Amino acid sequence: MPDLWQCRHFGDLPDLCQPNGEICVVEDVADLWAMERAGVFKGRYHVLGGTLSALDAIGPDELGIPRLIRRVEEDGISEVILALNATVDGQTTAHYIAEELETRCKVTSLAQGVPVGGELDYLDDGTISAALRARKSV
Amino acid sequence: MPDLWQCRHFGDLPDLCQPNGEICVVEDVADLWAMERAGVFKGRYHVLGGTLSALDAIGPDELGIPRLIRRVEEDGISEVILALNATVDGQTTAHYIAEELETRCKVTSLAQGVPVGGELDYLDDGTISAALRARKSV
Repeated sequence: MPDLWQCRHFGDLPDLCQPNGEICVVEDVADLWAMERAGVFKGRYHVLGGTLSALDAIGPDELGIPRLIRRVEEDGISEVILALNATVDGQTTAHYIAEELETRCKVTSLAQGVPVGGELDYLDDGTISAALRARKSV
Repeated sequence: MPDLWQCRHFGDLPDLCQPNGEICVVEDVADLWAMERAGVFKGRYHVLGGTLSALDAIGPDELGIPRLIRRVEEDGISEVILALNATVDGQTTAHYIAEELETRCKVTSLAQGVPVGGELDYLDDGTISAALRARKSV
């Protein structure tokens, strides 16, 4: 995995992206661009380059998680946003990172629920359950 | 629209479904069954039978919204859960109902965000924005 992936996104271009104490953890570069396309996150990224996988012998060291922890401590990060896929692999990895970081800074993850344009009768049970449990006042 | 749709779901079977002060507002019977399949909501339903639509001359009266308001007042409802589709029509209808009910009881709506199994690079920008804005601590 090239070191480039772990560097600050646009870190050398302070006019485009001022560090704001937030790091968004994504699985791969495609996810980084998905976040950028949405245009809602203004901060730095940490690209893992995969997910934890015992079968493929991918552990925390292969994903650069110790390096993420160092970044959090050295750069004065106040919030780590786990923007990982809502798959089993993604959530396992998110759970591990959250446990490692919970004493160091605020850790948040993307909300789960009904996607934009989603119709209830086409959604799976898990999504409906998550959306109902996380319902919010209007 | 048959009156049956507005009646209490399993209202005559108190063992199966005890009224708990919650009403879930859904668009049609397919959505009701989607909620039931998820098995996470234990309460009564109010089936609108459609959404507000100026073009099709479907207004609040056609959807039985005044009847919903009466139910809320007469049955001592504490919370109305708007389980409407995340489409333009669904959200317009939800907005109207929320405005009508906001002084009468608590009104909530399903969370928006990443669906179960969702991968970031396949999701639309609106969903990613909603999920990031509604991010929660882990």
